[in-house]
Amino acid sequence: MRGGFLFPRTESGRASLLPAPPWFYSGEMLTIEYEAAPGAVASLLPPPLAPVADRPDAVAAIWAEWQCCSASGGELLDPVRAQYKECLLVVRCRYQGRDWSRCVFIWVDSDASLVRGHFQGYPKKLGEIWMTRPALIGTAGPKLARGGTFGATVAAGSRRLMEARFTISGEAESPGFVNAHPMLHHRLMPRIEADGGDALHEIVSAASSDVELGPAYVGDATLGVFASPTEELETLAPARMLGGFWRRVGFTFRRGRTLATGAQG
Amino acid sequence: MRGGFLFPRTESGRASLLPAPPWFYSGEMLTIEYEAAPGAVASLLPPPLAPVADRPDAVAAIWAEWQCCSASGGELLDPVRAQYKECLLVVRCRYQGRDWSRCVFIWVDSDASLVRGHFQGYPKKLGEIWMTRPALIGTAGPKLARGGTFGATVAAGSRRLMEARFTISGEAESPGFVNAHPMLHHRLMPRIEADGGDALHEIVSAASSDVELGPAYVGDATLGVFASPTEELETLAPARMLGGFWRRVGFTFRRGRTLATGAQG
Amino acid sequence: MRGGFLFPRTESGRASLLPAPPWFYSGEMLTIEYEAAPGAVASLLPPPLAPVADRPDAVAAIWAEWQCCSASGGELLDPVRAQYKECLLVVRCRYQGRDWSRCVFIWVDSDASLVRGHFQGYPKKLGEIWMTRPALIGTAGPKLARGGTFGATVAAGSRRLMEARFTISGEAESPGFVNAHPMLHHRLMPRIEADGGDALHEIVSAASSDVELGPAYVGDATLGVFASPTEELETLAPARMLGGFWRRVGFTFRRGRTLATGAQG
Amino acid sequence: MRGGFLFPRTESGRASLLPAPPWFYSGEMLTIEYEAAPGAVASLLPPPLAPVADRPDAVAAIWAEWQCCSASGGELLDPVRAQYKECLLVVRCRYQGRDWSRCVFIWVDSDASLVRGHFQGYPKKLGEIWMTRPALIGTAGPKLARGGTFGATVAAGSRRLMEARFTISGEAESPGFVNAHPMLHHRLMPRIEADGGDALHEIVSAASSDVELGPAYVGDATLGVFASPTEELETLAPARMLGGFWRRVGFTFRRGRTLATGAQG
Repeated sequence: MRGGFLFPRTESGRASLLPAPPWFYSGEMLTIEYEAAPGAVASLLPPPLAPVADRPDAVAAIWAEWQCCSASGGELLDPVRAQYKECLLVVRCRYQGRDWSRCVFIWVDSDASLVRGHFQGYPKKLGEIWMTRPALIGTAGPKLARGGTFGATVAAGSRRLMEARFTISGEAESPGFVNAHPMLHHRLMPRIEADGGDALHEIVSAASSDVELGPAYVGDATLGVFASPTEELETLAPARMLGGFWRRVGFTFRRGRTLATGAQG
Repeated sequence: MRGGFLFPRTESGRASLLPAPPWFYSGEMLTIEYEAAPGAVASLLPPPLAPVADRPDAVAAIWAEWQCCSASGGELLDPVRAQYKECLLVVRCRYQGRDWSRCVFIWVDSDASLVRGHFQGYPKKLGEIWMTRPALIGTAGPKLARGGTFGATVAAGSRRLMEARFTISGEAESPGFVNAHPMLHHRLMPRIEADGGDALHEIVSAASSDVELGPAYVGDATLGVFASPTEELETLAPARMLGGFWRRVGFTFRRGRTLATGAQG
Repeated sequence: MRGGFLFPRTESGRASLLPAPPWFYSGEMLTIEYEAAPGAVASLLPPPLAPVADRPDAVAAIWAEWQCCSASGGELLDPVRAQYKECLLVVRCRYQGRDWSRCVFIWVDSDASLVRGHFQGYPKKLGEIWMTRPALIGTAGPKLARGGTFGATVAAGSRRLMEARFTISGEAESPGFVNAHPMLHHRLMPRIEADGGDALHEIVSAASSDVELGPAYVGDATLGVFASPTEELETLAPARMLGGFWRRVGFTFRRGRTLATGAQG
Repeated sequence: MRGGFLFPRTESGRASLLPAPPWFYSGEMLTIEYEAAPGAVASLLPPPLAPVADRPDAVAAIWAEWQCCSASGGELLDPVRAQYKECLLVVRCRYQGRDWSRCVFIWVDSDASLVRGHFQGYPKKLGEIWMTRPALIGTAGPKLARGGTFGATVAAGSRRLMEARFTISGEAESPGFVNAHPMLHHRLMPRIEADGGDALHEIVSAASSDVELGPAYVGDATLGVFASPTEELETLAPARMLGGFWRRVGFTFRRGRTLATGAQG
């Protein structure tokens, strides 16, 4: 045993910022799909990644609220360690002859989630994420039914970055095409020499397993994207809204696969 | 119009920290009932409030996660303004010939909730509250079924104050007797002269209306109470656990009633 | 003894959200003075408060970072209880034949400060406040010298509300006239009946004692004010900048004085 | 240009979670030195790192409050991006024939600092850090003089992890020997296959440059270490206190050096 999955590594491994996978997730996702300006997605894809042929500028803006645990399940009894929210922008790309989904910007609100993401290749930053919950009782929230309206926001650095609104029009089978492929991410860490090279530079893929999907409530959505000196969300501002959907999701992350390694992938 | 329900008051009233009631709540509550040491509850009741005759030292430790809005519903579309969590300790007392519930300690995690509580007579402080959510999909959480186990914690001032664990043994009709009465609270504000007197010193009561209760999942519970130089939770440490229950709750707060006013109530 | 200065009141008084005054403050203040549009300040003054004759629309936007303790000094050894930041907008008004300073909007980042403010009549909300610190060593910060440039921001509800910039041009004697008078505030609490009346409605004044002022570094300033559905800062947007100053300040709050009481003051 | 120093990488590099070094720091440090139980430090050193010969179980518990910027200095004008606090435990080790300092546990309160640390090999987690500031004016704080007493705490996961107290007895030349060497850290990232191997596993060293040290106020210190299911601080609990010191520090981080690479260093 090498003393824990991640740092700080100790004899027992107990202090590791992350337990080893598998990691189990149960939560709620609001997905808003739209098309950005022509070429917007391509401008965010490093070669040899290329845009997909069909609707190359499609983007999914996703808000999610999760409960997450490792095999021990211990996090569930101390829920400060299990619960977090995130907001991410997902696009599609072409690599090695197939289509992939790829997260280009993402904010989360816990260190475990932040670093779990860095392990998986998500470019996670910390942010403040809020999304309306459906009212399962009482009147302080939308019903999961036609007309139910949800809001969602993300902020970082004392600035609101995005806000969305979604209104249910009905239920539908398997909605969503942007976040529907296995994920393709870069994992990278610059050399400590800070000389322009990377000590870790990989292209990795990963797919969820044991996926459980609740009913999908589809509808119309709006998305506002605001300027920030430390973000580039203008690049992915909506040019044409496609729609949105809300549903409960459960899944397991077990491992990914290294597709390429090397200084420039 | 006087410029908003609460400060800061302006012509439009828009900046008021609180909108006027009614306030609508939808959420989830974990209630843990137990008996503290003999005389513990009485020691927290200012005269003329007196302990109840039956099980006078019964306490309810409650964790709740809410979505809350005013009549406009605008908070629901900007959920940073609608969602919060709280943890509170409730006891019973006798006043004017009847039994009341009374919150003696409470922590919340938003300013709207904090000050709404001060308006209602809850002695709210800010804290960090966490409670396990049931897994409605996937495996990262307890099921709402026999054996489902939940954790809950509250911290303030960089210290954990309480932690609880609850395991479902079944469903039951109307469980809980400690938090079952209308609330009886003091509202108070010391004189600006800081001379030992209060400018506001009232006894008020309030009851929820439009109450909707989901199924009650009952079970066994434990509660740990930790020392803090700015709290007095030792006073209410459990001597004998009674049990716990989890359920969804919806209700409306419309108004309360002033029962007594004056320098010492 | 009545069990603590503020709620929750107990036999020992230890759990009180606030210790009794006196309260001691040591900190750093950035003050930016400007004039808002004609009539802006008057529109925020409830009768019988009236605008002052000279420069009636002058406003001070203030950022401050404090360490604060009570007579015991215990907070200083557990600094989570002693340190906080705040941002406030101060105007002047005329009442009972003299001029006063008055805080019309304010955000702080601790519950002790929030409720201490409510006791004093400040309309405090929670917010996220940041202000550049001078570099007393090294190069990561402005020097307290000509050319030193400071930034300051305040956010609430996941939105940036204001941002300021200040550049030192020199030192000066007693700069600042807006926040230079004793404070005049309303203290108010609506009736629990939520019937449009207040149970507490007072006009109070207070002045700091034992004031210590460090050297005042004066200079030029800019201030940006952003829209929010729960604020009214547009009302006080700058029409003409006057200047700014930064200095260290120490003072004591001992008590205030009640100038008027009653349903409408 | 490869699109930014760290992820997310874009054409402009503007969205990068970190700007490229150099990074400039100005701040205040409280250092408490003590000896842990015999063998405690050795148990935290992965081979081939070995304990030092002289006082092998010496530890430095450090609290620091920083303002930090990159070459552009832009962070200083938007201080939410520049300011953070941290608490760390530093030990010494022997490697390649010389002595090094090494951080074994550390908590910070911003994502930029967290990930900057991961780049440098610090095993950073998020935490809530507080340290008393000296009172440069007024009375709400210790003076930088004999008898001045400071407190410091760190919490994570809603639990207090450590608390310290330090009282100045005088000034002294170059105090402190534990954190006095260049740093020796592991940088690591598990393989995405989660197969027990690391994709990045390096031993790196780094030293600060342009170090500026203010006067060192030395004195006596205490340190309390508390249990947590996700930490192993008991391992480094104090057996014998050595003393403490407080001073202002400025420095620059430019780059480090890779000393070894490979699956097990």
